[in-house]
Amino acid sequence: LAVLPRPPFVYPIVDLALLEGRSAAGIVALLAEAGAAVIQLRAKRASDRLLLAEARGAVAAAHRHGALLVVNDRPDVAVLAGADGVHVGQDDLDPALVRPLLPEGALLGLSTHDAGQVARADAAPVDYVAVGPVFPTSSKERPDPVVGPELLRTARSLTRRPLVAIGGIHAGNAAAARAAGADGVAVISALLRAADPGAAFRELQAALQGGA
Amino acid sequence: LAVLPRPPFVYPIVDLALLEGRSAAGIVALLAEAGAAVIQLRAKRASDRLLLAEARGAVAAAHRHGALLVVNDRPDVAVLAGADGVHVGQDDLDPALVRPLLPEGALLGLSTHDAGQVARADAAPVDYVAVGPVFPTSSKERPDPVVGPELLRTARSLTRRPLVAIGGIHAGNAAAARAAGADGVAVISALLRAADPGAAFRELQAALQGGA
Repeated sequence: LAVLPRPPFVYPIVDLALLEGRSAAGIVALLAEAGAAVIQLRAKRASDRLLLAEARGAVAAAHRHGALLVVNDRPDVAVLAGADGVHVGQDDLDPALVRPLLPEGALLGLSTHDAGQVARADAAPVDYVAVGPVFPTSSKERPDPVVGPELLRTARSLTRRPLVAIGGIHAGNAAAARAAGADGVAVISALLRAADPGAAFRELQAALQGGA
Repeated sequence: LAVLPRPPFVYPIVDLALLEGRSAAGIVALLAEAGAAVIQLRAKRASDRLLLAEARGAVAAAHRHGALLVVNDRPDVAVLAGADGVHVGQDDLDPALVRPLLPEGALLGLSTHDAGQVARADAAPVDYVAVGPVFPTSSKERPDPVVGPELLRTARSLTRRPLVAIGGIHAGNAAAARAAGADGVAVISALLRAADPGAAFRELQAALQGGA
């Protein structure tokens, strides 16, 4: 059974497009060593074969350090890689269809971008609801409109499921996301573009706890 | 149990990028009415949610007319849509990994582009081997180098599995592909860009049988 860490938690997303020659497994190991308990692997452009290879490496690295590894978008790849869960967006397969494809107890997360989607997520078989982009983001090719901490506050009133804030989060604004109701913050650029992703993770975690 | 039609057969591939406002289900119905016994649905750029919706419509249309519907690339979508099989390429998930994800008796096809890939396909748990591009093609964004009917002849000596020629096939060259060893010919543009896809299918089937 895969369980989210206790709030407030930092949820790193390792995007293959931001690896710059590093392996996903290597970054996952760094982040897990720094304390990340759940890490997502994301690849919007990689071939399925490459994605599976990176996912397998990432799962092994995460599990070696006691962390969970969630695969973005693809239940088939998650199952083949032995991952702990899947995260889907509004254009991906419906969580109600994905859930039966996964092993019992797998984590399933869903991205939402407005109050209606949050309300529907509350009724869906998901373990957490991601809300965003909370701040302007640079790591998505065509980001949805920025929703601000306001949607987090609204979401908090619409669901008791764990909320994960996503989009442009860094050590300087993580506490604001927490204050608006986020249980966790998903972070991409502020970790993957940092010279030392492990140190950046610890800085984020400290900033988040300071604002709790 | 999904079984390929008797050779020589035309294997239409309905690419969502070539629909021009038509529904996949509508084109599948036209082709199945014209005699297609197996049809593939392909979408390289659609969202997973759209792909699944189109796949469900295509499966229903195919089954109404007694045809099989194969989904390109994605075992998860194929399973969710109730499709009869999956076709994968060299960059997709390995057939040995895909096979256990599919229901018993599902069709599994693999694209190959050189003799080494054909030999490996012969040892893989696949029901047919696609070989190509046999002729220059316009329906793929970054096509592999043209292999000519020569690779079909080589493939015929390397495997007893059904061979499907693909790439730039039309009524004028289908018989040449058949003569080089193809059991079937996969056709995209010559069907989807035709004013009357059903008539184009019948013309192709006749050309193929003339060359048998």
